[in-house]
Amino acid sequence: MSGVKIVLDRLLADLEALAEVGSTGDGGNCRLALTDDDAGGRELVVGWMRALGLDVRVDRIGNVVALRAGTDAGAEPVMTGSHIDTVRTGGRYDGTLGVLAGLEVMRALDDAGVTTRRPLAVAFFTDEEGSRFAPDMLGSLVYVGGLGLEDALDVVAIDGARLGDELDRIGWAGDAAVPGPVPYAFVELHIEQGPMLEEADVTIGAVTGVQGISWQEITFAGQSNHAGTTPMRSRRDPAYVAAQVVTYVRRLARETDGLRGTVGRLRLHPDLVNVVPAAATLTVDLRHTAESELALAEQRLAQFMDDTAVREDVAVSSRRSLARFEPVAFDETVISLVEAGAERQGLSCLRLPSGAGHDAQMLARVCPTGMIFVPSHKGISHNPAEHTAPEHLEAGTSILADVLVELAA
Amino acid sequence: MSGVKIVLDRLLADLEALAEVGSTGDGGNCRLALTDDDAGGRELVVGWMRALGLDVRVDRIGNVVALRAGTDAGAEPVMTGSHIDTVRTGGRYDGTLGVLAGLEVMRALDDAGVTTRRPLAVAFFTDEEGSRFAPDMLGSLVYVGGLGLEDALDVVAIDGARLGDELDRIGWAGDAAVPGPVPYAFVELHIEQGPMLEEADVTIGAVTGVQGISWQEITFAGQSNHAGTTPMRSRRDPAYVAAQVVTYVRRLARETDGLRGTVGRLRLHPDLVNVVPAAATLTVDLRHTAESELALAEQRLAQFMDDTAVREDVAVSSRRSLARFEPVAFDETVISLVEAGAERQGLSCLRLPSGAGHDAQMLARVCPTGMIFVPSHKGISHNPAEHTAPEHLEAGTSILADVLVELAA
Repeated sequence: MSGVKIVLDRLLADLEALAEVGSTGDGGNCRLALTDDDAGGRELVVGWMRALGLDVRVDRIGNVVALRAGTDAGAEPVMTGSHIDTVRTGGRYDGTLGVLAGLEVMRALDDAGVTTRRPLAVAFFTDEEGSRFAPDMLGSLVYVGGLGLEDALDVVAIDGARLGDELDRIGWAGDAAVPGPVPYAFVELHIEQGPMLEEADVTIGAVTGVQGISWQEITFAGQSNHAGTTPMRSRRDPAYVAAQVVTYVRRLARETDGLRGTVGRLRLHPDLVNVVPAAATLTVDLRHTAESELALAEQRLAQFMDDTAVREDVAVSSRRSLARFEPVAFDETVISLVEAGAERQGLSCLRLPSGAGHDAQMLARVCPTGMIFVPSHKGISHNPAEHTAPEHLEAGTSILADVLVELAA
Repeated sequence: MSGVKIVLDRLLADLEALAEVGSTGDGGNCRLALTDDDAGGRELVVGWMRALGLDVRVDRIGNVVALRAGTDAGAEPVMTGSHIDTVRTGGRYDGTLGVLAGLEVMRALDDAGVTTRRPLAVAFFTDEEGSRFAPDMLGSLVYVGGLGLEDALDVVAIDGARLGDELDRIGWAGDAAVPGPVPYAFVELHIEQGPMLEEADVTIGAVTGVQGISWQEITFAGQSNHAGTTPMRSRRDPAYVAAQVVTYVRRLARETDGLRGTVGRLRLHPDLVNVVPAAATLTVDLRHTAESELALAEQRLAQFMDDTAVREDVAVSSRRSLARFEPVAFDETVISLVEAGAERQGLSCLRLPSGAGHDAQMLARVCPTGMIFVPSHKGISHNPAEHTAPEHLEAGTSILADVLVELAA
C-alpha cells in the first residue's frame, strides 16, 4: 500500500457531482432505478470510468463493470462496487460511496503507478434498492445467476412500466452476457445505515455477514361491531390481537440477543372511530445473523399469535411470507483483510453484521466476499439527512484500496 | 289499551316496501341522507302518512312531522318517530322501525276507533346517521334548537355537496319553522343494536338514557428508521406506543364497570414493512352512562399515554377531541310507563342504557323522553345482516302504542 494515497477532495467532488443528478433539493436524491435520473447518473459515472481508461462493459440487465488491467491478464479480477440507484427520498452516500470510492482507488493507483497482478473491477449494479422494481438487489442477483434474465426483464414497476422496456428506453441494455464472469473476490464499501459504529466511536466496520430476513403479513379477522352497543365481554376484536402482537415482537426482540423485530405496517378494516374492526393486518420484520435464532423467533411468534387469537376468538385468516432470506456469512479471509488494513492504518475497527441487504450478499454466492462499513451519523439512511463525515469517507476508501491491492496481489 | 291491536303483517309489509328503496341487494339498505334514495323513502313514507289522514308538516331542515288530531286541540302532541336515512351498508330496521311502527300505531288506533286527548305525532328526522353529513342526529338537533338552521344548511357532505343544496335538489326543504314545536313528550322505538336483550332472553328494553361519548384522536411521533440496522435499544417507535394504548383501553374498560372502550382507527406512517414508523395515529372511543366515570377514564388514559410515550421517547404530537357528549338520562315517568306496559302485556322487560346515539337524546333536551328497545339478533346493526324477529317487532310496536296512549290521555 505504500505510495497509494486517497485524495479526499476528488472523492467529495464526485459525490457532490453525482448528488446533483436527481437532487431532491434538500440534500437528498431520487434516482429510482431506470428512470431518466438513473440514466443521468449512469452517464456521469461511466464518463468518469472512461476518463480513467477503464474497459467499461454493460451487461443485458444494465449492470456496469469497469476493468483495470492487471499484469496477469488471465487472472479473474478482484471486484468492488455497489449501486447508484436510490430510494425515492434517498441520501447521497448509500450505494454511491462504494462505486465512487472504487473509482478513487483506481485513480490513486494510477497516481502511485501501481499495477496489480490481478485485474481490478469497479461495478455498479442495476436496481439495488428495489424501490421501483422488486426484488431489491435485482441486478446483482441476475449477475450471479440467481434470477433469469427474461424473468428480470419482465418485472413490472410500481408505476406499471416493464423493466426491460425501461432499460431499453434509457439506452442501458448492454450486450455483455449474464450471469457475468465470476470475480476472484468481491469487496463493497458502504455506509453502515445504522448507529453502531458511531455509538462505539469506531471508524471501520469489518462486516461479518448480512442478517437473515423474515417478512410476514398476518391478517386477523374478528367481528365488526358497534363501539357503543357491544359489551366488552362480547368482543372479538382483531385490533386488540394485533396490538398484543406488536408488543410481543418487542418483547421477543429484547429476549433474543441479536434479534431485531419491527411492525412497520398495520391496518384496520373498516378503520372507523366507532366500529370494532372486522380485520387487522400487520407485517412483522424479523432479522438475525443466525438462522437457528431467526427460525426460533418465527416459531415463538407464530405460537403467540395463535394463542392470542384463540383467546379473543379471532381467526388468523391469512399468514403470508413476503420474504425469507437466510443469513449470509462473509468470507473470513476478506473480513481479516479489512481488520488488518485498519490496524496497519491505525484506524479503529469493529466486526459487525449488516442489518440491511447489499449487492455483496449476492456476490457472496459465487466468490469470497466482504464489506467495509463507515459510520452513518445517527444511523440515518434512506433519508436526505443521511451523512458520513468526510474523514470517515476517506478512511473507508483507504481501507478499500488496501484490501483490493492485497486481494489482487 | 283495550281494543288497540297491532297488525304485524301491515308493519312487515311497510318495512319490506321501504327496504326496496335503496336496496343493496343483500338484504341491506343504502339511503344516505338527502340522496335520491332518501327522497324515494320520504315519498313512500309521507304517502302512507297522508293515506292515514295525518297532517304532514315538513320543516326547513327536512324533518317531517305527521299529526293525528286529539280531542284537546290546544294540547301539545305526544310525539314518536325516528329516522329513515341509513349508513352506507345499513340494515332495514335501524330508524325505520321507529317511524313505521308509529304509523302502525296510528292505524291500530283508527281501527279501534280510539281518539286520544292530546294529538299524536309521528316524525322522521333528517340525517340521523351522519354518514354523509356530520354531525349525526343533525335534523333532531336543529329541531330542538341545538344547531342553527343556517349552520346546518351549510354543512358539507363527505362527497362535497352542501346540505342546503341537496335538500333543495331533492325537494324536501319545507316551510315549517325550526326549532320546531316542543312536544308534550317523546318516545322512540328502536332496535337495540347490541346483544344485551337477546343474551338476557328479554323482549323489551326500557331505555334509561344514552351513554356519554368521548372520541379522541392521538398521534404519536417517533423516529422513522431502518428495520434492519436500528438496534432495539435505539428505537423510538410510535407503533409500539400505540399498541400499548390499544391494550390499555381494553384493560381500562375491564377495570371500569360499564365503560366501553374501542380503538377503531389506527394508522402508521409511512406504513412500510421494513421501516420503523415515524408516526402512529389512533382513535379512542370511550362511553359510559355516568359522566364522572367517563371523565375519570379519559384522565387515566391520558396519563397512561403520556407515561408510555415518555418511556419510548416518543412525542404526543396531537391530541384532538373529535366528539364529546355527556350522558343523557331519560325521563323516569316514561321509563316506568314502558315497564308498566310490558308488565300489562306479559312481556319480559329490562332497564338498559343505549350504547348508540338516537334522535331521542336530542328531544330529551326539551321534553320528557324515553325509548323502547327490541332485541337485535347477535347485536348486529349497521349491516345488511341486521335482524329483529317479527314477534319482537310486534311486541315493541304494541308497547309503543301503550305508552303513547298513556301519555296522550
